[in-house]
Amino acid sequence: MTIQIIGFAKSAYTLKVTAVLKELGIPYEVTQPAKFEDIKTPEYLATKHPFGKIPVLIDDGFRLYESRAITRYLINKYQGTKNSTVLIPSDVQKAALVEQFISVETSYYDGPVSKLVAQEVFTKLRGGSPDPEIVKEAREEINKVLDVYEKILEGKDYLTGEFSLADVLHCPYTHYSVATGHDDLWNDPKRPNVARWWKNISERESWKKIVDELKQ
Amino acid sequence: MTIQIIGFAKSAYTLKVTAVLKELGIPYEVTQPAKFEDIKTPEYLATKHPFGKIPVLIDDGFRLYESRAITRYLINKYQGTKNSTVLIPSDVQKAALVEQFISVETSYYDGPVSKLVAQEVFTKLRGGSPDPEIVKEAREEINKVLDVYEKILEGKDYLTGEFSLADVLHCPYTHYSVATGHDDLWNDPKRPNVARWWKNISERESWKKIVDELKQ
Repeated sequence: MTIQIIGFAKSAYTLKVTAVLKELGIPYEVTQPAKFEDIKTPEYLATKHPFGKIPVLIDDGFRLYESRAITRYLINKYQGTKNSTVLIPSDVQKAALVEQFISVETSYYDGPVSKLVAQEVFTKLRGGSPDPEIVKEAREEINKVLDVYEKILEGKDYLTGEFSLADVLHCPYTHYSVATGHDDLWNDPKRPNVARWWKNISERESWKKIVDELKQ
Repeated sequence: MTIQIIGFAKSAYTLKVTAVLKELGIPYEVTQPAKFEDIKTPEYLATKHPFGKIPVLIDDGFRLYESRAITRYLINKYQGTKNSTVLIPSDVQKAALVEQFISVETSYYDGPVSKLVAQEVFTKLRGGSPDPEIVKEAREEINKVLDVYEKILEGKDYLTGEFSLADVLHCPYTHYSVATGHDDLWNDPKRPNVARWWKNISERESWKKIVDELKQ
């Protein structure tokens, strides 16, 4: 049975999951709730996600929620079955570094970058205008975070040295930021390591397919 | 070589790690920075944690930061070597559910509970007084989260059904909340499942040892 992802197709959290499915070469279909309120109904809370969030995975009757947990499950179950891409290595120390940088993404990166994207993408989708003060504040916070990334990425093409799940999880929010006029942050001559890293991960075939689908 | 944890011994994030070490039966020593400013020095940022946080693990020369990443590493490397406690099962679906509830803890639980603990424990440690408005707000948020947990824990002794890393990670902040006069939230007759769960995890021998050490 085809893997089913319940979620809004443009949500950064849905995209974290579909980007991993694309990397692993696993077919899937995305089922979109008709409207935002549909994920807050008693039925959705009882049978899909108790906190009323997306995405939710259904894999041959097995249900799982929370995007990062879904990606780890997909890798543990399907990595190596359709192609040779490795997103979590079997070596215990290398796998630990992947988890370290997933936690960095969750704890320090996603906060400020999602703040920017909320203004530039999702406020606009709902017909509103971005708040310039919040955009300015988010950019200042992102600058500080990327200065740390510049040091982390010294001499490396990817966060752990090798391409991994940690890199993939950064793509959705970074893509939206770069695509809405903030590419100067990720292509700053003062941060060549960050610029090289973003080029490396955004130019992967699987991510380019995701971006193409977003345009449709 | 003994595992070294760099961190403030009373920090909830250090405790997430030491609680796992106790569960696995692995000896360790905690090295405390002399003062808070020591984790913001250029030397600490360059050699310990680039975002200036604790805890950091040093295991025979291997350095790892971010508490939840450290706990997964310790389990992958040491689970089953000293006792039979299982914190992450080998079954792919069962392991996925552990990750699902770690994400629930990170995304929905720790926020409001840490807000309460910041007031009741850490503001007091710095000689300040808790802000009653923030305490009230945090309690309201915790009430909503625990109402969801009550449903999640229906018919279960632990979050996934079996005791796991997901349960352990909840202990530090919950302990501090319960110990500072907010036990009514976790022992509410309207939430018998939450009360049973908290009793199950807080009365484990390894956690009781942690609590004893906190009193010293």
